[in-house]
Amino acid sequence: MSLLDALADLALPDPALTDPDVLAGLSHDDAEWAPVGAPLAAVRPRTPEQVRDVVRACLAHGAPIVPRGAGTGLSGGANAVDGCVVVALDRMNRVLEIDPLERLAVVQPGVINDDLRRAAAEHGLWYPPDPASSPWSTIGGNVATNAGGLCCVKYGVTRDYVLGLQLVTGTGDLVRLGRRTAKGVAGYDLTGLVVGSEGTLGVVTEVTVRLRPLPPPAVTVAGYFPSVVTAGEAVRATAEAGLTPAALELVDRHCLRAVDEWKRTGVSADADAVLLARFDDPGGAAEAAAERMLACFEAAGATWAARSTDEAESEALFSARRLAYPALERLGPVLTEDVCVPKSKVAEMLGRVERAAERHDVTIANIAHAGDGNLHPLLVTPPGDEAARARAQAAFDEIVAAALELGGTVTGEHGVGLLKRPGLAAELSPEVLAMHRAVKAALDPSGLLNPGKAF
Amino acid sequence: MSLLDALADLALPDPALTDPDVLAGLSHDDAEWAPVGAPLAAVRPRTPEQVRDVVRACLAHGAPIVPRGAGTGLSGGANAVDGCVVVALDRMNRVLEIDPLERLAVVQPGVINDDLRRAAAEHGLWYPPDPASSPWSTIGGNVATNAGGLCCVKYGVTRDYVLGLQLVTGTGDLVRLGRRTAKGVAGYDLTGLVVGSEGTLGVVTEVTVRLRPLPPPAVTVAGYFPSVVTAGEAVRATAEAGLTPAALELVDRHCLRAVDEWKRTGVSADADAVLLARFDDPGGAAEAAAERMLACFEAAGATWAARSTDEAESEALFSARRLAYPALERLGPVLTEDVCVPKSKVAEMLGRVERAAERHDVTIANIAHAGDGNLHPLLVTPPGDEAARARAQAAFDEIVAAALELGGTVTGEHGVGLLKRPGLAAELSPEVLAMHRAVKAALDPSGLLNPGKAF
Repeated sequence: MSLLDALADLALPDPALTDPDVLAGLSHDDAEWAPVGAPLAAVRPRTPEQVRDVVRACLAHGAPIVPRGAGTGLSGGANAVDGCVVVALDRMNRVLEIDPLERLAVVQPGVINDDLRRAAAEHGLWYPPDPASSPWSTIGGNVATNAGGLCCVKYGVTRDYVLGLQLVTGTGDLVRLGRRTAKGVAGYDLTGLVVGSEGTLGVVTEVTVRLRPLPPPAVTVAGYFPSVVTAGEAVRATAEAGLTPAALELVDRHCLRAVDEWKRTGVSADADAVLLARFDDPGGAAEAAAERMLACFEAAGATWAARSTDEAESEALFSARRLAYPALERLGPVLTEDVCVPKSKVAEMLGRVERAAERHDVTIANIAHAGDGNLHPLLVTPPGDEAARARAQAAFDEIVAAALELGGTVTGEHGVGLLKRPGLAAELSPEVLAMHRAVKAALDPSGLLNPGKAF
Repeated sequence: MSLLDALADLALPDPALTDPDVLAGLSHDDAEWAPVGAPLAAVRPRTPEQVRDVVRACLAHGAPIVPRGAGTGLSGGANAVDGCVVVALDRMNRVLEIDPLERLAVVQPGVINDDLRRAAAEHGLWYPPDPASSPWSTIGGNVATNAGGLCCVKYGVTRDYVLGLQLVTGTGDLVRLGRRTAKGVAGYDLTGLVVGSEGTLGVVTEVTVRLRPLPPPAVTVAGYFPSVVTAGEAVRATAEAGLTPAALELVDRHCLRAVDEWKRTGVSADADAVLLARFDDPGGAAEAAAERMLACFEAAGATWAARSTDEAESEALFSARRLAYPALERLGPVLTEDVCVPKSKVAEMLGRVERAAERHDVTIANIAHAGDGNLHPLLVTPPGDEAARARAQAAFDEIVAAALELGGTVTGEHGVGLLKRPGLAAELSPEVLAMHRAVKAALDPSGLLNPGKAF
């Protein structure tokens, strides 16, 4: 019996998809230039047991299994490999439980990040991890990449919130890892191991996440700077002052101009780089911290800086940050970098990105979760310009090397996927890579779970 | 060449210890009733390379390797097995680096928890995990057990603070895992996997931890309750009110009496159970939360409740909590439980502990990190009374079973070691235990790293 016949025999509520046009749309994420294979089929299971049955059928037929959420990844982690079955989890999109007393939620992997946040907010609770893709990306995808976001600088990343997982393992078992209690050390932290493993250790079918109380309304601080390097120095000054913002974002002139041209906002006339910070400490502490942040901005050379407690004004300031990526995408394919360096090296790293752009004659815009040193240089090339693409690839490689040289990592929050495989090999020692391979072989003995991704 | 000759050939600055009396002292932790084997030797290396050389010698000779810190563990995780080499890491006790800007510290594994806290405080920084053993236990031991403590209810456990590790692997390689940056998703979270693995996946030789700013002075709230169950109901009320204390501890009448008899404090005349809470929110928010906590205590049936901002008074209140364990140890061997249940089940779990004490005619005192449902029933038996010990073991098993029945875990923060191996097998499914064995075999192919511990 063929695998397609075996999948048909499962009598899934939605039959396996094999139409090439449909498959093409389910074969890749948002990473530019990452290779994409041709899947045999795609399935859209609705229950954990259906996922298990699909995985078992694939194991029996030696077919690769590529799980996917919304496909908003930026490293190629969800890209199809030849002959694989794409397991699309978008139909498993129910919030199963919100427990206000234990401060946890149990969700299916296809739940959209913002939908979980809305469901939590109804109980005065908050799911902090907020990747810029939060209106579209799924919790399952967030778990696969250990997604970060704006609030990580104070509140941590996806792994910090995952208490437990249900998943289908590499041996086709449906298991539960982790716990619902506040603490627990019963055995190895396999839950944390699966978070960020990009679908290479199992297919997640349910996620139990920790929630926090909604924070108080935030005070926003904005600063205009004459260069990204000066803005980077302000980030360092902020860290030296011991401030803990709930967000500290950088947007450079390329992004500001692209947003201006699209939305006619006009900010780019006044600043070469903007820093946006938020404080959400209770009882007046946010105001005091915001005042100290203003002083840091001014001492570092801001040309203008101000604070706002007005929610609408604050939202308008942050909208330039949020619109930067789509605004740039209007100009051509965007290759997204994701290096993370120590906070003290943000200015130097931004300087190196500028020099890489000059040296290779590439437009590199910068958005950054500056407060935790996580930079997203955005390499924009004219559509169809192969020479520009080659120059951009050279600049991309140079940025990765610079991040490692400055004591950083090749990926802060997007994952290794396909794009950062060479970077990972440069970052980890051969012995540590061997440990990765040993763990992978131990938990996925057939090697069929999202093969070729991560390492 | 014998292993002892091979160890001598390493020319360690401190020669291998083989005197039986000396070895006896290095052969066990503080767990009562856990089996203890007879080591071949103990070594006290001073550098990561010496640890690597010792591990390689043991691997070559097929000898088990049992790492230990201060031996304050409560599950038998550091207990020697026959023929092993004990690797005592107490001479690797230097704080190598405190970086205030990046908010991290790099320490050797033998650094005492309180010493790291003091070193961080000199820079206005704080290492939160605070097991009750913090004056004696080492960071290496804390990493091995993923130690918790009083502040976990708000600030998390050891794993939440470990950014990176240097360790000697099961193949005798000296490797670095993790990072120094705020974020990073380059590869599997092997750092988090090693934390809490009780020396079964490697011997940790250096730890990089995240630090936080020192919190503001705390407001303390104390409540006296007519029973532990009433106190447990106050814990539930606190959670329902959405409060986030920085500590919420329970001490019962057995502990209060033992402390009274030792230190003549007199609290036990007034209360059957005491709850102690701390709030450290900035800008007046702590005072407001303390007022709400008082209301929760009173509504739940407290016979007396008050708050204090006086540091000395607060310290005096918490000293009863800290003295409880040594005070009980004066009465006889103490077998320490470590179950963790959902916050809503604290009252029910405390009631079940009381009934187990009655049914099996055992004195069971209670201290608890009540705010996160982590209970430490303390089973006290008269020295040398074997019948009492058998009854205590039956009560211990009953408490473990009750915790699982209430949706909890068999170990919140002490680790599995030897004492909780049956509990672990009851908590995890056979498939998940198989995943543990596969990971262990992958990273410790010879099976010589702390064999027989954890699972």
